[in-house]
Amino acid sequence: MSEAAYVAVDWGTSSFRLWLIDRAGNVLAERRSDEGMMAAGKGGFAAVLQSHLDAVGAAPALPVIICGMAGARQGWVEAGYVDTPAPLASVLKQAVAVPGQDRDIRILPGIAQRDRGAPDVMRGEETQLLGALGLEAAADALVCMPGTHSKWVSVQGGIVARFATFMTGELFGAVSHHTILSLTVAGADAAEDIDAYKSAVIAAFERPALASNLLFQVRSGQLLQGGTPASAREKISGTLIGLELAGGLAGEVPRTSITLVASGRLQMLYQSAFDTVGISVRSIGAEEAVRRGLSMAAAAIWSV
Amino acid sequence: MSEAAYVAVDWGTSSFRLWLIDRAGNVLAERRSDEGMMAAGKGGFAAVLQSHLDAVGAAPALPVIICGMAGARQGWVEAGYVDTPAPLASVLKQAVAVPGQDRDIRILPGIAQRDRGAPDVMRGEETQLLGALGLEAAADALVCMPGTHSKWVSVQGGIVARFATFMTGELFGAVSHHTILSLTVAGADAAEDIDAYKSAVIAAFERPALASNLLFQVRSGQLLQGGTPASAREKISGTLIGLELAGGLAGEVPRTSITLVASGRLQMLYQSAFDTVGISVRSIGAEEAVRRGLSMAAAAIWSV
Repeated sequence: MSEAAYVAVDWGTSSFRLWLIDRAGNVLAERRSDEGMMAAGKGGFAAVLQSHLDAVGAAPALPVIICGMAGARQGWVEAGYVDTPAPLASVLKQAVAVPGQDRDIRILPGIAQRDRGAPDVMRGEETQLLGALGLEAAADALVCMPGTHSKWVSVQGGIVARFATFMTGELFGAVSHHTILSLTVAGADAAEDIDAYKSAVIAAFERPALASNLLFQVRSGQLLQGGTPASAREKISGTLIGLELAGGLAGEVPRTSITLVASGRLQMLYQSAFDTVGISVRSIGAEEAVRRGLSMAAAAIWSV
Repeated sequence: MSEAAYVAVDWGTSSFRLWLIDRAGNVLAERRSDEGMMAAGKGGFAAVLQSHLDAVGAAPALPVIICGMAGARQGWVEAGYVDTPAPLASVLKQAVAVPGQDRDIRILPGIAQRDRGAPDVMRGEETQLLGALGLEAAADALVCMPGTHSKWVSVQGGIVARFATFMTGELFGAVSHHTILSLTVAGADAAEDIDAYKSAVIAAFERPALASNLLFQVRSGQLLQGGTPASAREKISGTLIGLELAGGLAGEVPRTSITLVASGRLQMLYQSAFDTVGISVRSIGAEEAVRRGLSMAAAAIWSV
């Protein structure tokens, strides 16, 4: 086994992922847990990190590069923001060292859009973006990063020009569990209903103003015409993702390709949504992207 | 005191309202409680109704006319639906008698839109609509009835041509309590911020596709630029109502006037939203409308 060069950590609101990486960028070991910012804040960030470092046998001098909510005000050490228009390279330069630690631990900053008309923030996605596009991203790119809070980022010549957050994932949870639609999805199994999903995507994409009416139709449609709980879930999902695509693409100049940064089921859902509305995307795995971004940061900071 | 002629009841999902009414349509006594369908279903609808009839001293032979969720499948007696295109008069004709009762108790049906492309249902609002427009509603009307599930109804020559439900009120609750936006409104006092509200209405009305992005901006705006919890609440409210107006007015031919059926704070919010986007409305009190609709039903059924 080759020698470890550094440790990379993606520390989100509710999840923790750590990779032990060698000079060539190979992953030597990996850890994942639900000790995100919310859980880690209670017992202490240092203790959580150390337990995982011990588990992978990380040497005491091995440096650690971190991105995500560990750098939020409620996180471990506040890592601030780079403001838009933000050169991707400046994210690497403004990493904050965690004080009082034996090893060198750095947390990457987020990006803030301090536009009074469209205030927005990201933390963690800037690192995904780096990994997905690379530092030399010369061409213009529109990047869609789906999730609890989906980010749509417009990059021009290596600079984050502007971005917008859509609460799609969180709205899905709130609507499915805390409105009358909870009755429509109760007991849903894993069965997919790709036709119901696509129809819902198109309806919301074409008439986004009707979004909250289309959501109610999931209930009234089941009442009047029947349908399974799984199908209702797909319709809710399709409506919210169709709405997101309408908003994310609004005002954007037509592009030959959009970059989708996603994995697993989210990748499948968004890929299908883009296909449905006739827009081609280049798809990059979300985890691969964040790990690559962290490796770029480690290389820039420690020349590893 | 004049003699009672009948009892009118608006029995919703979570509220119960009863009026003792004389021949001239005057209210002799009134009861209101939170024994809506959800609560009443447990102890029994008959017992809840009887307790309120006793409280107002209703004579044993006095008939009772009911609208709302008491006529739902999960209600007291299922009162079915009149299908669109639905003449308002047919709502009065299809009242269902509650069996096994000493007195004459009737429940009005709802209205169903069995259009596969836009399935929708209402129950209770058809009676409000009757009261707001009258049976002889010859002119075309677009009626907005705000609430947990806002209804937008297009009436043409006394016939409900089509309608759409927007989950505005319920989305406001789910978003304010069950997403990251709960952090922005925590501890909000009753202070109003009409400027924040109006700006949010306009933003969502003009760019409805950005709805879920505008919602997130309530969080990021507070993070980057500050602002009170009360102001955040007004922005969430304005965003969702602006989205509803965009959807409710989409595809409608321009009209000289829209009828708004609402009371209290909802009336104020919607009136202000319509003013903000430059649309004039005729405003009718929601409670007055439903009571008038129930009286029209009583007159049609019992000639009282």
